[in-house]
Formats: sequence, C-alpha cells, structure tokens
Amino acid sequence: MAGIVKRLAVLGSTGSIGRQTLEVVRAFPDRFEIVGLAAGGNLALLEKQVKEFKPRFVYYREGQDNPKSGNYQFLSMEEMAAHPRVDTVVTAISGSSGLSPTLAAIRAGKDIALANKESLVTAGEIIMNEAKANGARILPIDSEHSAIWQCLEGEATPASRLILTASGGPFCCFTTAQLENVTAEQALKHPSWQMGKKVTTDSATLMNKGLEVIEAHWLFAMPFESISVLVHPQSIVHSIVEFSDGSAKAQLSRPDMRLPIQYALTYPERLPNPVLPKIDWSLISHLDFKEPDLETFPCLSLAIEAGKKGGTYPAVLCAADEVAVELFLANRIKFLDIPALIQQVLEKHHPVAHPIIEEITAADAWAREKAYELAPGDRS
Amino acid sequence: MAGIVKRLAVLGSTGSIGRQTLEVVRAFPDRFEIVGLAAGGNLALLEKQVKEFKPRFVYYREGQDNPKSGNYQFLSMEEMAAHPRVDTVVTAISGSSGLSPTLAAIRAGKDIALANKESLVTAGEIIMNEAKANGARILPIDSEHSAIWQCLEGEATPASRLILTASGGPFCCFTTAQLENVTAEQALKHPSWQMGKKVTTDSATLMNKGLEVIEAHWLFAMPFESISVLVHPQSIVHSIVEFSDGSAKAQLSRPDMRLPIQYALTYPERLPNPVLPKIDWSLISHLDFKEPDLETFPCLSLAIEAGKKGGTYPAVLCAADEVAVELFLANRIKFLDIPALIQQVLEKHHPVAHPIIEEITAADAWAREKAYELAPGDRS
Repeated sequence: MAGIVKRLAVLGSTGSIGRQTLEVVRAFPDRFEIVGLAAGGNLALLEKQVKEFKPRFVYYREGQDNPKSGNYQFLSMEEMAAHPRVDTVVTAISGSSGLSPTLAAIRAGKDIALANKESLVTAGEIIMNEAKANGARILPIDSEHSAIWQCLEGEATPASRLILTASGGPFCCFTTAQLENVTAEQALKHPSWQMGKKVTTDSATLMNKGLEVIEAHWLFAMPFESISVLVHPQSIVHSIVEFSDGSAKAQLSRPDMRLPIQYALTYPERLPNPVLPKIDWSLISHLDFKEPDLETFPCLSLAIEAGKKGGTYPAVLCAADEVAVELFLANRIKFLDIPALIQQVLEKHHPVAHPIIEEITAADAWAREKAYELAPGDRS
Repeated sequence: MAGIVKRLAVLGSTGSIGRQTLEVVRAFPDRFEIVGLAAGGNLALLEKQVKEFKPRFVYYREGQDNPKSGNYQFLSMEEMAAHPRVDTVVTAISGSSGLSPTLAAIRAGKDIALANKESLVTAGEIIMNEAKANGARILPIDSEHSAIWQCLEGEATPASRLILTASGGPFCCFTTAQLENVTAEQALKHPSWQMGKKVTTDSATLMNKGLEVIEAHWLFAMPFESISVLVHPQSIVHSIVEFSDGSAKAQLSRPDMRLPIQYALTYPERLPNPVLPKIDWSLISHLDFKEPDLETFPCLSLAIEAGKKGGTYPAVLCAADEVAVELFLANRIKFLDIPALIQQVLEKHHPVAHPIIEEITAADAWAREKAYELAPGDRS
C-alpha cells in the first residue's frame, strides 16, 4: 500500500464512529483521501468536515439544507458508495438505513469498513453472498470482530470457537430488582467505551453482544453453537479465538474505537499512530472474566435465538430494539420493558425464510409499528 | 501436509520434552513416523520406545550398553540430525550438548523443532545465520516462543514489543530473606508446569525467563530493549506481542508442553487432539499480571545483561548456571548462591566478540571450571 492513497467515503461522518474515522485519517494525510462524506444530522459538524477534508461528494439527509461551503457534488449514499473514485466505504451509519448503501458498496466490489451492525444482522446471508459474488471485502470495525479477524489472520485451519468479550455495561453486576428503576442517564454512562447513545444502551441490556454474535456468525461462517460470550469488565481483551488443538489467541488493546478503525483502513499493514493509546502493562494487575447473566439480561438470549431461527427474525429483533431503546431514552418505557417489548414483537412475527431485501425491509417496518403499538403506556 | 507422513528424529527422547513429543506422535500415527531416537540416559525407557516406534536409527550416550531389541542402525546425533530420511529434528536435549546436533540439522536444511534453549542462547548469531543460509526453519517448542510465533503468523508488519510471561515459579512472592533457606525439593515443586529438574530450578530463579529473553532476541530479531517480562502466575497467557498501532495479541492455553510441541510438528496446520487439555473459560475468573521482582531474582537481569553484551557471555552464563543448579540440587550450595556464583563467573570472563563454535565451547568449558572453583565450600 506504500505510496498509494486510499480513497474513502465515510457514511455517517458526524456520528461517533465517523468522527473517529476522520481522526485516524487526519493522522495519515499521505495515506488517505476523503472522497465522500455523508451525514444524517449535525449540519454544523458536517460543514466543518467539508471545509477540512474538501470531499468531492457530499450527502446530507435533510436535503434542502446542505453544507454551504465547499465545491462538492451532492450524491445519494448509494451513489457515493458505488462511485469508481471510492476505494473503501466506511459504513458508520447506525440503524437499518445502513443496509442499502452497504449493499450498493458491496455490489460495486468495494472494500467495506463495516461499522453498521444492522446490515449484517438483518441481511447477513445476502451480504456475505453478494460480497463473495462481487469480490467485496468486509473489514469489520467493531472491536470484537476486529479482534477475531486479527487473531484469525495467517491461520491455515478454521477456528473451533469464537469467544466474544462483553464489558457487561454499566449494570454488569445488577440484579433484576436493581434494574427495575435504572434511568437513561445511568444507562448512558458506559464504564469503558465512548460510543453513541443507541449502542451504549444496547451495551447496558447486552443486546449489543447478541447482535455481535449474529454478526460473528455471518462474518466468520461460524455456527451459533460455537460462539460464546464472556463478560470482561476491563474491555482490554476484545475477543478470543479458540482452535481445534486447544490453543487460543486473543487481541488486546485499550478500549478505543480508533484502533479497530485504523486496522480496517490500513490492513494488512499496521501503522504507528502516536495519537492512539497503548496498554501500560505495568498497570494491568488482573483481567477479569465471568459468564454472562442470561436471566437478568434476557436481550442476549433473545438475539441469539432470533439469529438461530434466522429468516426475518433478526430484522424484527433489530427494529423492535431500535424502537424500545428510543422509547427508553425518551423516558417513555422502563429499562426492563426493553427485552419484554422485543420479545412480544418477536412472538407475534410470522417469519419469512431466506428473505430478499424487500421482505427484510417489510419485516423491519412491521416490527417498528408493532413495537409502538405494544409499548407500555406513557410513563409521564 | 495432508497425506504426507513427516519423518522425525527425536533427540533427547527419554527426557520430559522427548516423552511428550512421543505422546503427540502416538495420537497421529498417520502423520508422523519416528525415524530416529537419541537419549543420553534412561536405557530402560529408550528400550521401550525403540520397541514401540521401531526407529531406523538409535543413539545412546553410554554407547556400550545399547538397546538390545529392534533392528536399528547406531548413529551419532549429528549423523541422525542430518540424515536424508529425516524431515524434522526435535532437539529436546537439555544443556550445551544440544548445540552440535542442532547445528548439524540446520546445515542439512531440516526443520528444527527446537526445545534446546542453550543452542540459541550461546550461539544464536551462528544458528540464525546458518538457518538462513541453509533454508532450515527453526520452529520453537518453548511455550513462550511458540506463543509469540503463533501471534506473529500472518502479520505483515513486525512486532514493536514482545512480552514474555513468567509463572514466577514456586517462590513467586518470596522476599530475599524467605529465599535464604529454600530447598531443592521446594524449588522442584512448580505450581503450573511439569518440566525437567534443570528448567524447573531455572524457573524458580527466573534464569529460565532470562534465557528465553535471549532466545526471543535471536528467534524474532528483536532488540533487547523491546522485550519485556511479565509475571503471570496462572500460566494461561503464554506470551504477548505488541504492534506499532497499539494493538496486542496473546496466545492462551492450559500449561501443557504437548500443545506447543504439536504446533511445531503440525505447523502450519492445527489438528484436533482429544488428549490435549482445553481451557474451560467458565473456570477462568481472572488472569493476574505483575512486574518481575528483579532485586529478589537477580538471575533475570544477569541473563539480559549477558545477552546484551553478547559474544561469549551467554555461553558463560549458561555453563555457570548449569553448574550452579547442579550444586544446588545436590544440596552443595544454597538457592541465593546460584545468582551470586553466576555473577562471579561472568565478572571474571574475558569475552570474545562474534565467537565461532570452538570459542563458544571453550568459554563453556572455562565457565564450568571457574564455577566449580568459585563455588562456596561444601555445606555438608
């Protein structure tokens, strides 16, 4: 890659992953060129980014009120993702709106630095088949999947088990009774990771880990029976891969999303980046592990169950979770209502096996409507 | 490798590593053929091994009293190591007598599954240069170096730091005062590893870790400044490799030498072996780490210092240590006399830079003589 500038489109540039992607890019001006920026909100920040990175293409969801400065062309996210001037597409949009541009990038045979969980969770079969057919590479940005990817590099024999670590979130050792009245404010105080509101809440319910199990299933072609979850509060060990000979490999780093982002962007190289934190081994006196508490945090089992059943179930899971988290953050439902609501929506769903994109989109829309309908009455 | 039988010569077949090598071979009768067995003692066990594995070549140090059964040819270890019928040579002899057959194997371009520490420590420069010149591959069997090797596989960028873990041995948290009167019996009770007497004692003094730092320096072309040691009493994390981007990889397994032995023999494949123990992740509640206590265990610094100075110093270190450990196990000197004696011998040495083998052998002989001469009077 030395000497070659990688041309990036960052979809979701004003979100947490998008901003951290641009921090990595800023550290290597000779390596990366920002060709496209797309954002769904925060016009002020997008304006700043356009000024700094001078992208050729810009997309802003609220289309009438585009960035004023800059000499750019307005493109849809799908057009940008598939444009011949783009080498790598960073899909940092959260939620189901990431699916369509991700597919566009895959069909154009791009490298996809994938942070949009939902596209793999809801359409993993389609994504992986299309990636194979079009020679597109999926380079995961999630710290857990990046860890697994790093541990599998160079291995001639497939892994026998993937062990995803989970920080456990802010309520790691809580009982169900203690969870009864926890607030959105408490849920958003993640002990180790700086992330967006949706994923931070999903961390607190363990739904995030459930979605990651489904992602790992698709990314690494691993049966659900061979994927485990281990709670590791320090968030230093980002995941573990076990092999048939009894050996295991783990990837470790400080919990900082810029590390997996940079790995995805510079792969197969690693580049020294003084901005990134290093582990101070003299400060690590112990790394703790424990099994997840599946009874207190039912979202993990709900997700794995939906993943195993497959079809449109994962799309329903994702959509119902998006609604449930939105209602919880708006103080409209309680923390324990989140898994209860998702479960009710899943139970009412009539699934479609091996769905096409339109069926996934329909299941998503159905689940959102059903979730609002079934949500407990307004708490205010 | 599928379908191809690997033909092995096991030098040191009756020792701890040799016996465990044969256990691995026993689990894969279709993959391995024992072509040669060499032992320095324990004729009764060698007889049994010859009966079971029917090697074509046998060596026994006390030459007059060879194994009686079997239709074998008597060869020297050097002849066996270089024989065209041998693909891989397992060098499981301990001590400086491993150097000559290791070099013979390297000059014949064999794969060397290397367990003999001393050859790399005393003649690392020659070994690595000869291996390169002759296309011989050095496949480390030490658990720490195997771990580093496994973590480096597939990496496009060199490591920035190697972190060797150390169990700390049976006296991990002892003070100097507490070490004053520890016995050989106590030193031989290793908390996590089953190994031979010499290496178990070296574990208790931390000399073993010092020798491994020198080995790592040569095996992975890593400056001493970029190699650290971290005490990890559970012996689950076998070493850690750090990269320039701030990411690190670790290899984990139950402490069982058959795992790294099998990896060296089946590389680049991994094979399922029901005999080998697996980590039960539900039982691992925490992994502990701390910096080594260099003042209480001076052997570690002595070794690293000798490694940095280079030349014939590491040969003197090894030889003086062999004598010191022998005297300690015979109850002739005390535990704390071991580092003191080694240090005295090192201080009296007139080194040779970039020594040839004969100069290394001469330094070894000089150091042994000097160590006996300087050893404190008989304790009995």
